[in-house]
Amino acid sequence: MVNACKAFNTYRFFSGKEKKDIIFKISKILENNKENLVALAMKETFLPKERLEGELSRTVFQLRSYAEAAESGHHLGLRIDFSDNKAQDTRKMMIPIGPIAVFGSANFPFAYSTAGGDTACALAAGCSVVVKAHPGHPLTGLAVANCIQEALPANNKNIFQYISNTDNDVSEKLVKHPNTAAVAFTGSLAAGRLFYNWAASRNVPIPVFAEMSSINPVFLLPNKLNADVNLLCNKLTDSLTQSAGQFCTNPGLIIGIDSPSLHEFVMEMTKRLDKMNGQAMLNAGILKNYQTASQKALNTDGVKQLTTKHPESNSDGFPILATVKAKDFIKSPILMREVFGMYSLIIKAKDNEELLQLSSLLEGQLTCSIWATEADIKNNKDLINILREKCGRFIFNGVPTGVRVALSMQHGGPYPATTDSRFTAVGADGISRFCRPLCFQNWPDEFLPSELQNNNPLNLYRIINNVGAVH
Amino acid sequence: MVNACKAFNTYRFFSGKEKKDIIFKISKILENNKENLVALAMKETFLPKERLEGELSRTVFQLRSYAEAAESGHHLGLRIDFSDNKAQDTRKMMIPIGPIAVFGSANFPFAYSTAGGDTACALAAGCSVVVKAHPGHPLTGLAVANCIQEALPANNKNIFQYISNTDNDVSEKLVKHPNTAAVAFTGSLAAGRLFYNWAASRNVPIPVFAEMSSINPVFLLPNKLNADVNLLCNKLTDSLTQSAGQFCTNPGLIIGIDSPSLHEFVMEMTKRLDKMNGQAMLNAGILKNYQTASQKALNTDGVKQLTTKHPESNSDGFPILATVKAKDFIKSPILMREVFGMYSLIIKAKDNEELLQLSSLLEGQLTCSIWATEADIKNNKDLINILREKCGRFIFNGVPTGVRVALSMQHGGPYPATTDSRFTAVGADGISRFCRPLCFQNWPDEFLPSELQNNNPLNLYRIINNVGAVH
Repeated sequence: MVNACKAFNTYRFFSGKEKKDIIFKISKILENNKENLVALAMKETFLPKERLEGELSRTVFQLRSYAEAAESGHHLGLRIDFSDNKAQDTRKMMIPIGPIAVFGSANFPFAYSTAGGDTACALAAGCSVVVKAHPGHPLTGLAVANCIQEALPANNKNIFQYISNTDNDVSEKLVKHPNTAAVAFTGSLAAGRLFYNWAASRNVPIPVFAEMSSINPVFLLPNKLNADVNLLCNKLTDSLTQSAGQFCTNPGLIIGIDSPSLHEFVMEMTKRLDKMNGQAMLNAGILKNYQTASQKALNTDGVKQLTTKHPESNSDGFPILATVKAKDFIKSPILMREVFGMYSLIIKAKDNEELLQLSSLLEGQLTCSIWATEADIKNNKDLINILREKCGRFIFNGVPTGVRVALSMQHGGPYPATTDSRFTAVGADGISRFCRPLCFQNWPDEFLPSELQNNNPLNLYRIINNVGAVH
Repeated sequence: MVNACKAFNTYRFFSGKEKKDIIFKISKILENNKENLVALAMKETFLPKERLEGELSRTVFQLRSYAEAAESGHHLGLRIDFSDNKAQDTRKMMIPIGPIAVFGSANFPFAYSTAGGDTACALAAGCSVVVKAHPGHPLTGLAVANCIQEALPANNKNIFQYISNTDNDVSEKLVKHPNTAAVAFTGSLAAGRLFYNWAASRNVPIPVFAEMSSINPVFLLPNKLNADVNLLCNKLTDSLTQSAGQFCTNPGLIIGIDSPSLHEFVMEMTKRLDKMNGQAMLNAGILKNYQTASQKALNTDGVKQLTTKHPESNSDGFPILATVKAKDFIKSPILMREVFGMYSLIIKAKDNEELLQLSSLLEGQLTCSIWATEADIKNNKDLINILREKCGRFIFNGVPTGVRVALSMQHGGPYPATTDSRFTAVGADGISRFCRPLCFQNWPDEFLPSELQNNNPLNLYRIINNVGAVH
């Protein structure tokens, strides 16, 4: 972190264009090493080749998208108020906050790890980065880190560092190091909260962006369910079982009012899932956690397993569907905890009142989804208003998996989905996580950063005297 | 907070125009009650009439400025990406986060208290507000609260609540209440950090925006000092002694390289301060703290008092100027602590190296100021680069007091100036403290918030497919 701090003191003055060029170069080197990287990740994670190839492409796309954003400057929040009779000239822009400690995820060895969204955003912001190797894919991480190193300027390799030591006390040291300015983390609620607590206990507290736990409730409203049982079954079965259910946006909760259509849906989905083969999970520890957590959920009062296989009957992960009445769900907070894998719980509410009651008890989520006709929307305004408060992304007639990399994306949500619902981990707005505003008061034009100079040499969008414009 | 939560569930859907109208109405009722409010505040704070009248006008201006912003929607961060072959339609906007607990300051009974910047920003964001009375001016607070109540819709008075009980355990209950979504606080480092710790220890942690401790270093660079001793003396003496020095932006540290000009400056400023009368401080507790804290600083190794009066020789606060060599300052962390009142410490560095060394050891500040000629700027690039990292507002040839209410203002800075350097407490960008993004995926146009509808009925600035525009 001391070296990261030195590197930061050079890198923070790189122009948007210079940052863009470096990040693009990283993306190209990753592409050139695709075969080797995918082969390594296949060995370490058991994810299939096609999935990993897609993920690497996504990673390249993310890097390029945030590189473009570094140059276009949407994240700079440029504001200028000229001096007037009473007030001094003030001009504000976002500046990078400092060296960032990044802890990647198990399930995305590329897109949310060493060269993933957090690293890309931090580099685009102008921050140096220290990534700790993930114990699930340390060699993939190292190979990616070497690609990043190759892209960095010869005299400033410490802009990015990779720590191969996966011990827990390395994490604690990184989070508590006085030079660390912020932490980005993707993983479990327990670990994320621990990191948050470390950061909050520092002499100088720092922000922690931890993406942790979400069960992504999907509401099937009556008219839509009556009309489209088969469509819903297709969509939700696919969404649940992709990549062995190892997505943070996995639909872990499906909710409807008890009815013949819901019964039909449940039977049909159970049938489809029972026909499916198991899938290798990321590693033995994650399989074991899946088996333990799903068994614990199934043992909870009122929960009935619908699929037939016993959670521990296989060395692969396989789909598990269960059901519970709303009144029993409400009594058991454990059913709110994420079961990481192909597990989903169908909640049957007896009426609208129970639906509203259980909805208002839901914890924060990355996503909430509703399947509805227009009539359903009009009949369920209260439900919709409750769900808006619960999530970062609110989906209409769609499944939660599939996170678009776009400026309009919000991948984040109220706790425990993340530790900070005000920021996103996907899309170029994620760059803002690693910035803070600095106001220049009364500086001579030539000594201002070019982003704030009178003639707007970079042609950026700026709000001047409260009016937005590109001059 | 339960009532604040109910009120929030109505108020959060108010349009920008509706929020603006309410906040404007508050400002008008405050203006109409000016005489009474100022009279009450004079009794409770000993601040002079003219100062309080100015502060009330500022409060009214803040309310109107943030009300305008609520309608203009700069804080909404609107982003739309249309669906394409691969991706769903996604649209994002800022929504209010929930009921806000506000703890006002001792030194600004209007502008940073009951109807102050935090309340105005929270209301502009669409949040309900609970203000706890400040023990220094509970009756002024109550009178202001009644003005706010008068402005609120008859059926929704709980949008704003005032708690007259000033006990500490009320603060703890408010910060820890499950319905509290964020905390805004202005006051001491000790109290701010306590509030932060309470919030971080919650089952669901919440953001705390605490503006706490800043000594606002002012650097006098050699050429400027040689040229303008008298100007610097005038400006800094005025800045230090306004309102008995009871400003968060008070210049508590003045730094230069030892030279005949610095000596002349020190002698001249000492002479002027010694001629001044004392001023009544806000209350007996604040006077006592000023006397204790300044005495403690004066007792520190190497610190020499320049003015003649003994800190405890008077029932008013009076100006104290002291000096210390850079090498002694560096050894005593206590000299980094704010002394709230007309106290300033002049640090003499023996050379440029010492200047850089002490600068890099400074804690986070609301402001850093430098007085410099163009030659000084060119000769002090390293210093300038260090100071950029230390503060929220970086002032050229000006004093730190006087905080412009404008979109380009940053009133905030690295810890311990605030608990969150990413947000401002002054200017309409302060509204963002009380918002979080929500992404709508694939919703039919008619059911989207009007801010995100295709035809842009409110004519707001939006970034569409990565291009900013008003349509």
